[in-house]
Amino acid sequence: MSFARIAVAGLAVFTLGAAPVRPDSAERTVQAIIQSPAFKSAVATLEREHDRTVADIITLTEIPAPPFKEAAKGKAYMAMLKAEGLSDVEMDAEGNVMGLRRGTGPAGGPVVVLAAHQDTVFPEGTPVKVRREGTRLFAPGVGDDTRSLAVLLAYIRALDAAKIRTRSDILFVGDVGEEGPGDLRGMRYLFGKGKYKDRIKAFFSMDGSEAARVTFGAVGSRRYRVAFHGPGGHSYGAFGIVNPMAAMGRAIDQLYAVKVPARPRTTYAASVVGGGVSVNSIPADVWLEVDMRSESRDELAKLDTRFQEILKEAADHENAARDTRLGKVTVTPKLIGERPTGATSEDALIVRTTAAAARAAGYTPELGASSTDSNIPISLGIPAVTIGSGGRGGRAHSLDEWIDVARPESVRGMSVGLAALLAMAGS
Amino acid sequence: MSFARIAVAGLAVFTLGAAPVRPDSAERTVQAIIQSPAFKSAVATLEREHDRTVADIITLTEIPAPPFKEAAKGKAYMAMLKAEGLSDVEMDAEGNVMGLRRGTGPAGGPVVVLAAHQDTVFPEGTPVKVRREGTRLFAPGVGDDTRSLAVLLAYIRALDAAKIRTRSDILFVGDVGEEGPGDLRGMRYLFGKGKYKDRIKAFFSMDGSEAARVTFGAVGSRRYRVAFHGPGGHSYGAFGIVNPMAAMGRAIDQLYAVKVPARPRTTYAASVVGGGVSVNSIPADVWLEVDMRSESRDELAKLDTRFQEILKEAADHENAARDTRLGKVTVTPKLIGERPTGATSEDALIVRTTAAAARAAGYTPELGASSTDSNIPISLGIPAVTIGSGGRGGRAHSLDEWIDVARPESVRGMSVGLAALLAMAGS
Repeated sequence: MSFARIAVAGLAVFTLGAAPVRPDSAERTVQAIIQSPAFKSAVATLEREHDRTVADIITLTEIPAPPFKEAAKGKAYMAMLKAEGLSDVEMDAEGNVMGLRRGTGPAGGPVVVLAAHQDTVFPEGTPVKVRREGTRLFAPGVGDDTRSLAVLLAYIRALDAAKIRTRSDILFVGDVGEEGPGDLRGMRYLFGKGKYKDRIKAFFSMDGSEAARVTFGAVGSRRYRVAFHGPGGHSYGAFGIVNPMAAMGRAIDQLYAVKVPARPRTTYAASVVGGGVSVNSIPADVWLEVDMRSESRDELAKLDTRFQEILKEAADHENAARDTRLGKVTVTPKLIGERPTGATSEDALIVRTTAAAARAAGYTPELGASSTDSNIPISLGIPAVTIGSGGRGGRAHSLDEWIDVARPESVRGMSVGLAALLAMAGS
Repeated sequence: MSFARIAVAGLAVFTLGAAPVRPDSAERTVQAIIQSPAFKSAVATLEREHDRTVADIITLTEIPAPPFKEAAKGKAYMAMLKAEGLSDVEMDAEGNVMGLRRGTGPAGGPVVVLAAHQDTVFPEGTPVKVRREGTRLFAPGVGDDTRSLAVLLAYIRALDAAKIRTRSDILFVGDVGEEGPGDLRGMRYLFGKGKYKDRIKAFFSMDGSEAARVTFGAVGSRRYRVAFHGPGGHSYGAFGIVNPMAAMGRAIDQLYAVKVPARPRTTYAASVVGGGVSVNSIPADVWLEVDMRSESRDELAKLDTRFQEILKEAADHENAARDTRLGKVTVTPKLIGERPTGATSEDALIVRTTAAAARAAGYTPELGASSTDSNIPISLGIPAVTIGSGGRGGRAHSLDEWIDVARPESVRGMSVGLAALLAMAGS
């Protein structure tokens, strides 16, 4: 996940220490929770057992989980959920692993989901050994989203140690397919086919570190794999024929001249590329993957339209610039990912509750939008937000990704999600 | 190999049917050879056994030989050279396979080399099954340069059947590393370290099909693998930082705007590309391979200078266009291939002899330059030309590469190399 702040008009903002202007029900519920001895006991467990959480982060980070290859991590995580004593622990047909912490309500009633994703963006073979420097852990995927997986386990232990029972069942999920090519396949299954699909009344995705963030907006995305094809031939003998690589280069250059608005936040990336057979051959086939996102459906559509024009112009330019007698350059974009744009209402209980929990821990809530697992429930009208796992972190999706696991800040961050979860699950 | 015609001033051009203007010694030697009963008998063998030559082409084409992975083909070819009764059959330390057909001169005397290359441009896993349609064979590598390997075997059988003895030893070579990344490593070894290195008085590379071609010029080349590096990051969260892919796209687009002279023939190709980790990550590393060639050392140097400017400008442009706080884009070109430019003198005996042999078979010799195995002996001042294996062909370095193995045209073409070889080896 990645986040953009949104200036939210009309959202009541409270800060700790100042008297609440208009304490609403969410605020009152959260305050009652965090002041309860049981919650304090749970947080004390998070604090006391923090080293174990760090150990879990390292264990899980060092199991590679490239998109569509999460199975090893999924199995390991399922065993951990089982070890924490959850009921109904299983891996579904898509690869999501989950277990239920039963509430006091009748069996088969509403479920609150807390999910973290197993997959990372990194391909097979990427070294995933965790390097520790002081309180910092460095490794691909350590923060996005492996820390969250470990925090879910810590929550279960803390709730059990404090003997906290909620009214609703809580479903803890380690899901698949959150990153790029997965295209939210884990969530599509959970909400489309999974056995809990009609029981989910609220959904939390824990993704990334920042505890102040309350992601209520779903950034939409469109992702393409673009195939550039031409006749190909000998680099010397066939010089002068069209080269699909030239069209691709031009398309990339033109894309990077496109201006997009900062608000609503709109982005693009030419991200993965490949093709060609040998240095002395004009390639017949090269390809490019491109990611486009926006908080706004209209801006996303506008960017996509411009991108399609750029592709067409790049092919036309190449076919006009060089010899096409052996064949023209063709450019074929294939949609490989599409995520709905949308938002949980700013006034929804889950948004107000999570913001209140952040304030209660001393944070100024940052409401924003991102492209996360929450996109799917949001698109279905199910109350959903994406929250942080606590502690600091950075450089997600890069090989020098890191998190800081200093205990006080980590536990303070973790307390936000726990309070929000309890508030939504009821007592 | 690939060829460009050169307008040759001062070269005597004869055509069959017209009276020679000034029959020189080369012309007289070739005429004596082709009119001899022994040569006619040898050509009759080529004709009679042509189906076997076609079978050898198919057998050898269907053994993959990507650059640096020629071993399987080399072993098979070595067995074939042995089966033809050559002496001193061996594979050298670089992977060249060869065998000697002893002449009548004293052992250890001058050697005439006839070489064809084993390697193709196609990577591992490329389907190499030959498809036949009438007299056409389709398969990657079938013409460049597998037919030549089979023609060498046909020559040995034809010489033996006709009981032709030459004065000089003839070394038949199936060599490695002619294509791109091999960077002529087979020839560098043969002429730099091989046991015949001080005995080679003339060198024929048989590469490609066209029997009219007499390649006496060595097209020089410079090849780069260019690494584009940047900080990388989340496609959405880190949008706005520099992207090495954007610099690469611009460099390709700018390269393809460069005008190069048609004479001296000068070419470039952006040929192979790769990099990036996932569709939703700004890549930290992408790379590009580029091939530049020219008949002229100066034009090649000029093109290379312009290319380096383009790379620098592309990096500068990207670093100015986007945020560099996490790091700048760097562009690092690495020279991965360099072939000397040069030429065997147009007046050299080997050039005049080969042109005479082409004329004797009814072709109008096309003198030109290319980048072939001959580049190495040419750079050492050893008389060398590259000749064709006979028959028609096309689409070298593409997946739809083909040759035509119609018997009359193939045998006519094959007679050119045989006559030139015998003329240079002496009787």
